[in-house]
Amino acid sequence: MFSFSRSSLRHFSSSARILGRAVVYSQNGDPSKVLRVLTYPSVPSPPPPHSVNLNFLLSPISPADINVVEGVYPSKPAKTDALTLSGEANPLFVGGNEGLARVTAVGEGVHTLAVDDWVIMLKQQAGTWATDRTVTVADVAKVPDSQFLTQAQAATITVSVNPPTAYNMLADFVDLESGDWVVQNGANSAVGQAVIQIAAARGLKTINLIRDRCNLDALKERLHNLGATHVLTYDQLADKSVREDIKQWTGGKPIRLGLNCVGGKDTTNMARLLGNDAHLVSYGAMAKQPLSIPISLFIFKNLTCHGFWQSRWYIKKPLEEREKLMQNLVTLMKEKKVREVISHLHPLITLLTSVAGHS
Amino acid sequence: MFSFSRSSLRHFSSSARILGRAVVYSQNGDPSKVLRVLTYPSVPSPPPPHSVNLNFLLSPISPADINVVEGVYPSKPAKTDALTLSGEANPLFVGGNEGLARVTAVGEGVHTLAVDDWVIMLKQQAGTWATDRTVTVADVAKVPDSQFLTQAQAATITVSVNPPTAYNMLADFVDLESGDWVVQNGANSAVGQAVIQIAAARGLKTINLIRDRCNLDALKERLHNLGATHVLTYDQLADKSVREDIKQWTGGKPIRLGLNCVGGKDTTNMARLLGNDAHLVSYGAMAKQPLSIPISLFIFKNLTCHGFWQSRWYIKKPLEEREKLMQNLVTLMKEKKVREVISHLHPLITLLTSVAGHS
Repeated sequence: MFSFSRSSLRHFSSSARILGRAVVYSQNGDPSKVLRVLTYPSVPSPPPPHSVNLNFLLSPISPADINVVEGVYPSKPAKTDALTLSGEANPLFVGGNEGLARVTAVGEGVHTLAVDDWVIMLKQQAGTWATDRTVTVADVAKVPDSQFLTQAQAATITVSVNPPTAYNMLADFVDLESGDWVVQNGANSAVGQAVIQIAAARGLKTINLIRDRCNLDALKERLHNLGATHVLTYDQLADKSVREDIKQWTGGKPIRLGLNCVGGKDTTNMARLLGNDAHLVSYGAMAKQPLSIPISLFIFKNLTCHGFWQSRWYIKKPLEEREKLMQNLVTLMKEKKVREVISHLHPLITLLTSVAGHS
Repeated sequence: MFSFSRSSLRHFSSSARILGRAVVYSQNGDPSKVLRVLTYPSVPSPPPPHSVNLNFLLSPISPADINVVEGVYPSKPAKTDALTLSGEANPLFVGGNEGLARVTAVGEGVHTLAVDDWVIMLKQQAGTWATDRTVTVADVAKVPDSQFLTQAQAATITVSVNPPTAYNMLADFVDLESGDWVVQNGANSAVGQAVIQIAAARGLKTINLIRDRCNLDALKERLHNLGATHVLTYDQLADKSVREDIKQWTGGKPIRLGLNCVGGKDTTNMARLLGNDAHLVSYGAMAKQPLSIPISLFIFKNLTCHGFWQSRWYIKKPLEEREKLMQNLVTLMKEKKVREVISHLHPLITLLTSVAGHS
């Protein structure tokens, strides 16, 4: 996650605010070779009609963002010439798909946003690895109740793909009610931890699968503290006797939703825990192995297997759905039912300094 | 398929019609050991109120029926004492799940059926390996337009599970329109041949996968004659260059439905042919290998994998749906768009004679 907060920028120089800076590239390739920092004139103020000026607060750096730079990801950004007044001859790519930004100025005809509102990007591949951008008002959505949130909290639930992924996978495939059971693997991933918390907030019970490791007890305790009902290792799952334990836990109630970010034989074992008419949703493939499912589970137990990709969700759902999702996540965060999760914060200023020779 | 037609019974004796005969068993086990033929007094005439007497014309012997006798199939029949007047001390199982029967007498209060109507069973595991049974009227459905059909035609589309399976898989998962493409493996199976014919009748294009074999050209010609658009072997599919051919055939139109009765790597290759938002429906596992799908197909191409089981369809759908299905299949058969497929016909008389020592 890049940080563009005032506190970081304060270290730079008081005159820095009149210049914008962005992490850009002219062609796809190895990020360490193609990425560079561009300094550009500050965005026009006031912005054009129906546009707003943004100052980015936090922008994530996700593995998918790296793949976009490499040119190997299904989502492709468009080049822009909006930053090229600084002497760039050709349009270029601005890195970054998502971002949390503060509105610094509004153009004529903008009635839905005001200065100091926080917004997120509605447009895919918006080019968020930048200090300041001018965008049309239709390309952003206001973060509700932002006065109750820290930047890290707001970024966790809106900019990061993880809590939205967890929320939607728990909502979109099975009509779950309080007391229903969900099983997931990769339970200590960022999405997995969000699943545990959101499920617990909804009264759902979770069986959480993780790899064995030396600090297993500490990790189990952490997941239980987040709200996990049960935590098992893949080795425990491979032992068929665990199925009796699970029947006792659930009282024989069928498990109707499985969430998978692993693949391979551990996921096959997880699928066998599912009851009739269950849904298995894959959102990752950490084991780099296919999903392998006995066909009898499809035919006789009516299993359905889906994939989930938050980027597609954003493209396919109407804006009201996205706003409802954001409101629901803000409420969970305000009520401390979901904790902020930001793994590393890199102030852009550090990057600016370290690559100053390139700019 | 057992045949109980008059022509078979005529060979027995003129007095045979006053006795009923059924293939029964008292406990699950190896069919060659536990099955026996029971002779029982003719069914009561007239039948009780709201009941009808049936004379079975054709009753299928499917692999699933054998598994039911063995006790290893999910559907379990109930024992009956309806046939035990002949001196049997205990209730017993009557074999057979489905059957085509002729109404021979109707009880008081039966207004929806008349003598000589043809009916099929609505109740699972109805015990159809019998010459005559008395059933309540709610347990059977009338075959529409039976005057236009031969027994073999009527049995193919109503009693056999194959054309209904093909029809429903083409209807229930993707809203296909004339000109859309479907890919299937095991294309020369009974279901596969029904898929080819029903798809062709709807104007759908099919890519049909089969195993290589010595009489390949003859089989290809037969499938083309049924209406197959293209026929490929699994070996041809494994060669990536075939994808270019397929793109040319489809004009780049995405294939939205795949039908699988095989499993294993050939099915993985088939799944790669599917376009975005496609559905892969499994109804068999002839390779006895799991369905193995790269997780990227789920996440980035929004593939959904389902199972189909005609028995579940009959249980879950309301009667009107079943009647609509039967009417649609009768129409296809009347219009010669689906051909009858009955693999072997075993007159029950043969069995009766061969096991006469046991009865």
